[in-house]
Amino acid sequence: MPVVDVHTHVYPPKYMDLLRSRTAVPYVRSFPDNPAAGDRLVILPAEDTESTSRGRPIGSEYFDIKQKLAFMDQHGIDISVISLANPWLDWLPAESAAATAREINDDVERMCAEHEGRLYAFGTLPLSAPAEEVVAEIERLASIKHMRGVIIGTSGLGSGLDDPKLDPIFAALEKHDQLIFLHPHYGLPTSVFGPRASDYGHVLPLALGFPLETTIAVTRMLLSGVWDRFQSLNVLIAHSGGTLPFLAGRIESCIAHDGHLKSQGAFEGRRSVWDILKRNIYLDAVIYADVGLKAAIEASGADRVMFGTDHPFFPPLGEGEKEWLSVKMNSDAVRSALADDRSAADAVMGGNAVRILKLDR
Amino acid sequence: MPVVDVHTHVYPPKYMDLLRSRTAVPYVRSFPDNPAAGDRLVILPAEDTESTSRGRPIGSEYFDIKQKLAFMDQHGIDISVISLANPWLDWLPAESAAATAREINDDVERMCAEHEGRLYAFGTLPLSAPAEEVVAEIERLASIKHMRGVIIGTSGLGSGLDDPKLDPIFAALEKHDQLIFLHPHYGLPTSVFGPRASDYGHVLPLALGFPLETTIAVTRMLLSGVWDRFQSLNVLIAHSGGTLPFLAGRIESCIAHDGHLKSQGAFEGRRSVWDILKRNIYLDAVIYADVGLKAAIEASGADRVMFGTDHPFFPPLGEGEKEWLSVKMNSDAVRSALADDRSAADAVMGGNAVRILKLDR
Repeated sequence: MPVVDVHTHVYPPKYMDLLRSRTAVPYVRSFPDNPAAGDRLVILPAEDTESTSRGRPIGSEYFDIKQKLAFMDQHGIDISVISLANPWLDWLPAESAAATAREINDDVERMCAEHEGRLYAFGTLPLSAPAEEVVAEIERLASIKHMRGVIIGTSGLGSGLDDPKLDPIFAALEKHDQLIFLHPHYGLPTSVFGPRASDYGHVLPLALGFPLETTIAVTRMLLSGVWDRFQSLNVLIAHSGGTLPFLAGRIESCIAHDGHLKSQGAFEGRRSVWDILKRNIYLDAVIYADVGLKAAIEASGADRVMFGTDHPFFPPLGEGEKEWLSVKMNSDAVRSALADDRSAADAVMGGNAVRILKLDR
Repeated sequence: MPVVDVHTHVYPPKYMDLLRSRTAVPYVRSFPDNPAAGDRLVILPAEDTESTSRGRPIGSEYFDIKQKLAFMDQHGIDISVISLANPWLDWLPAESAAATAREINDDVERMCAEHEGRLYAFGTLPLSAPAEEVVAEIERLASIKHMRGVIIGTSGLGSGLDDPKLDPIFAALEKHDQLIFLHPHYGLPTSVFGPRASDYGHVLPLALGFPLETTIAVTRMLLSGVWDRFQSLNVLIAHSGGTLPFLAGRIESCIAHDGHLKSQGAFEGRRSVWDILKRNIYLDAVIYADVGLKAAIEASGADRVMFGTDHPFFPPLGEGEKEWLSVKMNSDAVRSALADDRSAADAVMGGNAVRILKLDR
């Protein structure tokens, strides 16, 4: 059974060129007077401070696909389904977005073609462009050999994934059987982490902001009836669903106990969160512990959860460490959560991805 | 084995008097010109709108303890550990807070004494008062017959539970073996729920805002080293920990992969989240599904999870429905999550609370 990584990011060369050409978020900045600082990637306004510690270090592991392959070999990963890392193209001017998306997607497809059998990809959509241009790119992606869906963030066209203006886009994705890989980027307002948040490094926004953003986004999709209108729309949710598997019961209860909604008949005939978790939602296994992973597996099924690494994020901190702790935490979680069912563990590690994403070996 | 409800709220008469005397949040307002609107409870600024649908309806189930007992009898609950409902006393002027807290706590104790064997309570702290007055109330509560700890929100003295100024309060709670019942109130900024949030009734703030607020608060406690300084401080976290059991692995991973923290030696010798979950944290079983409850039980242990109802919130919506769906969802979750271990299920339904809270029968 192959090992497949469905959550692994790249900034392809065309995207790096774009980031290097900019001076406003998102951008990549070098410090010619201080080469030791290295290049810095700044993707959120809160990171855009006046110091060499702004943003995060960005090295060739972000854009040199050879390093991705070396990482895969090191960790016994047969196939990676690569996706552009956040913040994607949400921020492009409307008039250039579609052309840029085509360039980036072609760049990624070229990487996959040059490493036949090792790489597939999720494409990127020009979500700031007019809807018909977004739909055109979905149609184009559907015919590109190694593309298996699209990665999107939580902002949609700017006001969230419960925006009815997304319907033509969801319809096109459903029609062409393109999986959405839903991934966080914006986190939560920094105020919620309190006045001492910076004492804790990046832990609060990364450990909590990301999954909570994801949970809110997918719950807004649920409540707005996206899956009632598009019953075959499939979404792979990053980080094992944010926190959706854990909170699904509370969401169902809050719907069932809302007098205002009931008096309006607002949710009559709706599909339950549980039904959508088992028929439209896939979850990655990027959760770093068996407790959470078991909940993800219970919520969606062991045949709908797929291993991932989040490479090149969360590298080991020690000098010369070749095995990544972050990868080990996630693969150990799979083996532990499914200790009694070796074939289910193998499926989560790769077999599910081969079947769901129709990967050739 | 008795059935014990550890998550059940009251507004005792003294607190109702206080709310009725006010015109700013929090308050209770009647509409003499429109008696059909009933009394309305407004506890959050976002609810303070100019209409009779402001806030939420508040009836005698909030303050008439006879109705609590009738609810207990209806649902086979032998003992309830009652607590003041949010927003507690966080908002009181410093000079009157301690006296008001004593009055409210005495009011609650009187309820317990009048129903010997059926009621225990978590007390309320005057957190806007000087720290020594808060400590004095903790010491006083420790000697009151039916008090078994204190309920607090996430704001602490105004800037969160990672505030070092809380140390004397945590020290006093630890010294007197008083359990903290940590409960959300403020939710998240409404902006995170997007422009269509009101289409979904109260679902997003209640289903997600509450548990995410809780998760952030307890993670700030963890990261600030509260449990490294107070290794015997015990906290019962509402709603099965917010989302802590699900995200504990991600929190551990983000700490382990934070280069800034590592370079500072910030977390050397720290206790892990898993250790704290199993030695300092208790979880209620107010999660409405077995998927989440199993994760809570895996994270803290079946001997540390305790049944709750959240009464009088989430009443049934149908006329004349005597069995509460919200209670059934939670008790069904216990029976389902522990279907293979009847004695563990009985322990979650009541035995754990009897042991942990030292309840006389």
